[in-house]
Amino acid sequence: MNDTKRTTTIQQMIRQPLPPMLVDRLRQGLGDRFTESMAVRAHHGRDESAYPDMPPQAVVMAQSRDDVVLTVKTCSDFGVPVIPYGVGSSLEGHVLAVQGGIALDVSRMDQILAVHTEDLTATVQPGVTREALNAHLRETGLFFPIDPGANASIGGMASTRASGTNAVRYGTMRDNVLSLEVVTSQGEVLRTSSRARKSSAGYDLTGLFVGSEGTLGVITEVTVRLYPQPEAVSAAVCHFPTVDQAVASVIEIIQMGIPIARVELMDTQAVRATNLYSKLGLRETPLLLFEFHGSEAGVQEQAQTVQDITRSHEGMGFEWAHRPEDRSRLWTARHHAYFAGLQLRPGCRASTTDVCVPISRLAECVAKTNALLETVPFPTTIVGHVGDGNFHVLMMLDPDDPAEWALSEEVNSKIVGIALDADGTCTGEHGVGLHKRQFLMREHGQEAVAMMRSLKQALDPGNIMNPGKILPDHGSSII
Amino acid sequence: MNDTKRTTTIQQMIRQPLPPMLVDRLRQGLGDRFTESMAVRAHHGRDESAYPDMPPQAVVMAQSRDDVVLTVKTCSDFGVPVIPYGVGSSLEGHVLAVQGGIALDVSRMDQILAVHTEDLTATVQPGVTREALNAHLRETGLFFPIDPGANASIGGMASTRASGTNAVRYGTMRDNVLSLEVVTSQGEVLRTSSRARKSSAGYDLTGLFVGSEGTLGVITEVTVRLYPQPEAVSAAVCHFPTVDQAVASVIEIIQMGIPIARVELMDTQAVRATNLYSKLGLRETPLLLFEFHGSEAGVQEQAQTVQDITRSHEGMGFEWAHRPEDRSRLWTARHHAYFAGLQLRPGCRASTTDVCVPISRLAECVAKTNALLETVPFPTTIVGHVGDGNFHVLMMLDPDDPAEWALSEEVNSKIVGIALDADGTCTGEHGVGLHKRQFLMREHGQEAVAMMRSLKQALDPGNIMNPGKILPDHGSSII
Repeated sequence: MNDTKRTTTIQQMIRQPLPPMLVDRLRQGLGDRFTESMAVRAHHGRDESAYPDMPPQAVVMAQSRDDVVLTVKTCSDFGVPVIPYGVGSSLEGHVLAVQGGIALDVSRMDQILAVHTEDLTATVQPGVTREALNAHLRETGLFFPIDPGANASIGGMASTRASGTNAVRYGTMRDNVLSLEVVTSQGEVLRTSSRARKSSAGYDLTGLFVGSEGTLGVITEVTVRLYPQPEAVSAAVCHFPTVDQAVASVIEIIQMGIPIARVELMDTQAVRATNLYSKLGLRETPLLLFEFHGSEAGVQEQAQTVQDITRSHEGMGFEWAHRPEDRSRLWTARHHAYFAGLQLRPGCRASTTDVCVPISRLAECVAKTNALLETVPFPTTIVGHVGDGNFHVLMMLDPDDPAEWALSEEVNSKIVGIALDADGTCTGEHGVGLHKRQFLMREHGQEAVAMMRSLKQALDPGNIMNPGKILPDHGSSII
Repeated sequence: MNDTKRTTTIQQMIRQPLPPMLVDRLRQGLGDRFTESMAVRAHHGRDESAYPDMPPQAVVMAQSRDDVVLTVKTCSDFGVPVIPYGVGSSLEGHVLAVQGGIALDVSRMDQILAVHTEDLTATVQPGVTREALNAHLRETGLFFPIDPGANASIGGMASTRASGTNAVRYGTMRDNVLSLEVVTSQGEVLRTSSRARKSSAGYDLTGLFVGSEGTLGVITEVTVRLYPQPEAVSAAVCHFPTVDQAVASVIEIIQMGIPIARVELMDTQAVRATNLYSKLGLRETPLLLFEFHGSEAGVQEQAQTVQDITRSHEGMGFEWAHRPEDRSRLWTARHHAYFAGLQLRPGCRASTTDVCVPISRLAECVAKTNALLETVPFPTTIVGHVGDGNFHVLMMLDPDDPAEWALSEEVNSKIVGIALDADGTCTGEHGVGLHKRQFLMREHGQEAVAMMRSLKQALDPGNIMNPGKILPDHGSSII
């Protein structure tokens, strides 16, 4: 990736001021919801990725669909980029203003518009976070299962096709977004589908927008599926001599059809980091973290079968967390694995991988990855949504050492290569953003990437929607 | 719909011969797999819909991806329509050659290419039928759950985003197609995704092709998800005084989170027809047909809870089918509901509706539909995948009475209206084909239909892929 060259071009671009007539129109229509304040711009020019800040030229704090329409229409008229922004928890540079333009912050669009308890659906504005939705749902007996590490916005999660620890049972955002309201690149409002649980009525616009990372339009409403809170929940930790044995257990559990709700892998380093950060006293070996959902009897039965399986793979002990507070401590610790990793090296920043492979190839891919990680000079951890074949390597890097960053990029690229060779993907749940564009051609092939480009061209002919993300640049070295 | 006018134009079009150079190229490349035989054309010019036959100008019996590529490339060069054809079990006119062209029959592409038991996936050619796949899987301990009434081809099922009686537990083709190989309208081959269980790597091409009814390209391989055959299976019938009470039971069952595998509604007429056709001695009242999958204990627990719920809604009795042969008889009878309906009126043909609504609105929609059906002079039945909010009205019509057909179209249109008013869809699982194009604008709105049109234009700029399906004609009266 020719970063220096790109950065220079970007800097030149961003130095160009916004067209004064655009500024006038937005200021007139939005009042102080439009701002060019340096502080606000700076805040919107970074995410949780390791990229340097790339602030937008201005920020709109949208409060309604009308604000979104006005912003997009105006930007469309002037050919100025629009970058939808939720809470900025992306790990892949999705919200960075690589071509300048306006950050369209929807975090104030945070209303829960409807909860249909009989239909098991909720319709929310895009700025509602997953935790806010679940807090709202608590009394209804329902919950929304998708749980990336961060308290992300539902709109952002739809945009990156996010998942998390529950996906093995409940699926990803692909499976759990039922319908969207979107504002197109021309500022038109449409709904991608009805609220029926299934439909064969034409092209799947919902599916097209889920995972499109703000490059096709702006999501202004999301209807998601909900699930009944399980009658019984139980969590457990099981230690293994090796990562391989943990993975072999999971394959067997899935093949038996056990409806396990969560099964997370942590390697020894990840356990060590979590102990440090979350003050847990876990034995420092590779482990699996399980959660079972069901009736009282169902959960017991699942747990018994899983214990039998783990034992046959030398799983050691099986520590239960029956009380809600113990479970919560365990899962909060798991969700904080990213921040825990940072504790392994004070002052570091982290780069994370996100490959996902068919589960039959997982043990082999993790082994190859481990062999690779043994050669690097910086601390690393591995955590994984192992039931899906998705695992993350966290690399703790010295922010001031370009050689470490270069090496980490090389490692990342090799891990992606390992996954693609195993018929996997470069990203299971974080999205492409800036960081994975370089792998798209290798993963999908020229024809599929060309088709994606046609879709982008068809829906955003002016290339104003989050330009420079997902698709490799034409003729760029990132191909 | 101005049928007379369209038919005339079609007849004129089809009378035009195929370009001789195209015929030469296909004959040279395909030998006798290319045919202009009237009998073969006639066979490919009809499906299970009530439309008059519209045969293609020629038929290709493809045996490989290369045959598909050659056919599509040649047709693309000459601007001749290509109509992908599986087993012809469509109910909506999908395979009719409304603009002439070549039927591309993939039924001989019937190889099961791979079964990955550890990953719970199978990769098949598009002509493999669902029953053939399940027969092949029997020894593996896995199964493929999607079961439309017909023994449809997997390629066809992907194309119409089909589902069936298992969708309440296992989802539809949208949820169960993991990856596709497709031949684009320009004859290029691409794969829509890797075989990883989840991915965030770019636009969801898999989702775009599922449900695209052959209008964007030709499916040449399908990778589907499989599931472990449940340890225990049990089925039961429960009778209700009214359809409303049956529906109320289902809502409660779903809200409780019971992982029910199947729950089908039949109204009194449908039960009567099924008794006649399948020689079952079911009591002739509205009924629910249940199936439970799980462990022995799990199935018992589910069944007990469901019995308690149905009892509270005046469900009468609960007749069990524990033996595999009894279950099989029951479900075969349900799958034959379409043919059973035909028995209610000797010599009739059937027209079927396929609306799907949020389950909270289902009882109301069924009641309104029933009121409507009381006014018609022909026999009707209602069956439904009630856990999804999807129900079918079968209207048994005199093929020689245009007034009955006109009335049935009016009833169909009113039932769709009832569903759309309830935030539902005109088609839950049969697809749009020819028959539902008239409802697309009302269901999706002008902007969404325009977006679908842009997608079609982007991926099939020559409009050769199954033209005249899904999208309403530009400027046609079908808008």
